[in-house]
Amino acid sequence: MSQLVPPHGSAQLKPLLLEGAAREAEIKRAAGLKRVPLTSRETGDLIMMGIGGFTPLDGFMGKADWQGVCDDMRMPSKDGLFWPIPITLSAAPALADSITIGEEVSLWDEETGELMATMKVTDKYAIDKAHECATVFRTTDQAHPGVAMVMAQADVNLAGPVKVLSEAYFPKQFAGLYQRPAEARAMFEERGWSTVAALQLRNPMHGSHAYLAWVAIEVCDGVYIHQLVGKLKPGDIPADVRVKAIDALVNRYFRKERVAMAGYPLDMRYAGPREALLHAVFRQNYGCSHLIVGRDHAGVGDYYGPFDAQKIFMEIPSEALHLKPLCMDWTFYCYECGSMASMKTCPHESKAVIDDNGQYQGGARLLLSGTLLRKLMSEGKPVPAEFSKPEVIAVLKEYYDSLEEKVEVKLHGAATGDMKK
Amino acid sequence: MSQLVPPHGSAQLKPLLLEGAAREAEIKRAAGLKRVPLTSRETGDLIMMGIGGFTPLDGFMGKADWQGVCDDMRMPSKDGLFWPIPITLSAAPALADSITIGEEVSLWDEETGELMATMKVTDKYAIDKAHECATVFRTTDQAHPGVAMVMAQADVNLAGPVKVLSEAYFPKQFAGLYQRPAEARAMFEERGWSTVAALQLRNPMHGSHAYLAWVAIEVCDGVYIHQLVGKLKPGDIPADVRVKAIDALVNRYFRKERVAMAGYPLDMRYAGPREALLHAVFRQNYGCSHLIVGRDHAGVGDYYGPFDAQKIFMEIPSEALHLKPLCMDWTFYCYECGSMASMKTCPHESKAVIDDNGQYQGGARLLLSGTLLRKLMSEGKPVPAEFSKPEVIAVLKEYYDSLEEKVEVKLHGAATGDMKK
Repeated sequence: MSQLVPPHGSAQLKPLLLEGAAREAEIKRAAGLKRVPLTSRETGDLIMMGIGGFTPLDGFMGKADWQGVCDDMRMPSKDGLFWPIPITLSAAPALADSITIGEEVSLWDEETGELMATMKVTDKYAIDKAHECATVFRTTDQAHPGVAMVMAQADVNLAGPVKVLSEAYFPKQFAGLYQRPAEARAMFEERGWSTVAALQLRNPMHGSHAYLAWVAIEVCDGVYIHQLVGKLKPGDIPADVRVKAIDALVNRYFRKERVAMAGYPLDMRYAGPREALLHAVFRQNYGCSHLIVGRDHAGVGDYYGPFDAQKIFMEIPSEALHLKPLCMDWTFYCYECGSMASMKTCPHESKAVIDDNGQYQGGARLLLSGTLLRKLMSEGKPVPAEFSKPEVIAVLKEYYDSLEEKVEVKLHGAATGDMKK
Repeated sequence: MSQLVPPHGSAQLKPLLLEGAAREAEIKRAAGLKRVPLTSRETGDLIMMGIGGFTPLDGFMGKADWQGVCDDMRMPSKDGLFWPIPITLSAAPALADSITIGEEVSLWDEETGELMATMKVTDKYAIDKAHECATVFRTTDQAHPGVAMVMAQADVNLAGPVKVLSEAYFPKQFAGLYQRPAEARAMFEERGWSTVAALQLRNPMHGSHAYLAWVAIEVCDGVYIHQLVGKLKPGDIPADVRVKAIDALVNRYFRKERVAMAGYPLDMRYAGPREALLHAVFRQNYGCSHLIVGRDHAGVGDYYGPFDAQKIFMEIPSEALHLKPLCMDWTFYCYECGSMASMKTCPHESKAVIDDNGQYQGGARLLLSGTLLRKLMSEGKPVPAEFSKPEVIAVLKEYYDSLEEKVEVKLHGAATGDMKK
């Protein structure tokens, strides 16, 4: 009998998405409302509220909740319920000034121009951005991408309950991958799972990630490989390629009935420990009992200690979350152990040497650099199977080769005038 | 910073053992009290109360707690606190009749004749033994060793708070292994552990047990190999040999700082699911955040489904225990995976074939029978290292060889009249 963790702070999921006739009517009504633009991050947050991933939020946070979340990870408007990162909407002062408290406004994605939601404005407030950064990101250094994003926000926050009207391009562009929390829960229940470990992923799945998933399956009913499908940095592997590589791995080396894969629409904030907690909150809403927290989870640069995101789970009150972290150390293949291992299990401390031809030359722990990996792949040399399975490497290689072909087509097309640019 | 789970139902451990002058005085006082004999099981339970392993019990349970524990796993005398198995003391009716409510009695181990405790009798009651068996053991079949033990109890239960005066032979006979909960907690804190997985062990530690410990270390700060050092069935491996074999394994294949080993004084009840919960309660008192629950934990014969002991943790209220189960499936080495695995992770379903000379002949999952293992060892043939490390096999072989030598000495001694029997 499946018995999943309850949603966060609520017996039921609270999706704020309208559907069918109610949605149609709201879209018509929205035409007469003042327009507030949404950044990519705000759109992602809004969609998560729409699909119940941010249960039990009713909309963007007011001043008291912003303050409570920054200072104590608590929302005064929800009886002090735990919440680790402010979920806010910013607007230019001129626009904010033109909106009165109690007024309804329409929210539009500034990049796609799509109507995303309506909101009844219940609060307008300026924030101390540096305070938000210092508490949430533990730094005010603008070189931190999350800090830069907050500092670049417009100067007034608008708050209020939202009615969400769209999931943007996610359901179509990531068909078969993008999943709402209720769908994930139904799937887990159908499989009879009670304990589900979420594996946060935004990169290809090499041996180390596979080992995290493997260990999670040993101690839970199944693993939920939950990929970020928000915007990517240039050079990152697109989601469809990642999916193909994960499928190749799972089909051959796992029991398929123990693995589920899906995508979620958020942008990364790189808030390290606090973001790990946000990942925990919405994974609980997705029905996950555990979140795998590895080394430097959701971190960037060296702003956070490698295990700060694990430690913070020990610092919050035990009743803050039903979901528990599955904390794991740095993992690798060890030639002496003859298996995957971590700094906690492997007693051999020497580093394995892999030469420029991908050949093992001795030593214990295989810690392959990204640089050497790319070099081996681009030269068609073998990547040690102990680092990444050949099926995964084949998918990645096919992708990189197609990039090169595109570049060639592009160059050729430009020369013959077939392509615009 | 170490932050261990709290003891069960109490902010502090509640050891009932007297020490120093208080103990001496109580021993003198006990001389004038009526003597009540203790069975081996009752002595083990009493010592666990003495050292705080059964925190927050004050003594042997009265009628209301017996009934509440049997029917609902709740103790009415402790505000309905969770408790899975009755902890009771039985006495012959004639002896019980001679004791008045409010009277103090002395408790003596019936096998060693040692004074173990004093008790103020607050309740005398007959029980429906079949009801206890049906609720606790899920059977009244007297072929079940736990049922037989209950049915053989004397017919009246005596209850009341105890003052424990001895830990019997455990501290001396198992010096360096036997450990009190407060000592375990101090050790965990010294190591900086917060999450500790207990591995219940009463057999040698082959590859499968080692893998359980390995996985537990991956997801916790450390593993506590916690051996039963109560009485053994004939043919079982004695504790000192098990310790030597575990040391050999840990020293070579684990990071020693992640493994702790100790013993506890209880007898097995073979109550399967309910006993797994009792294991959980006292492991929480020892400071463990997790208990590894494998296949047929604490079971005997086929009285319980292989995962009943895991399922029961899902059936009890989530607040019943701070400790959580680490549920794992049947584990083995898989030649196709090239690693240890379980039914949940390994996708290869064929069975590996090992011939009578210990040689691998093909197939995936290595499920070595105890019979073949003993045969290989007794004939000096290699046991596959994938089943059990050579260091472990060497220790066991040395033990078995010494048994044979003893038998030879015995036979020789008998022939020359040196030995009585």
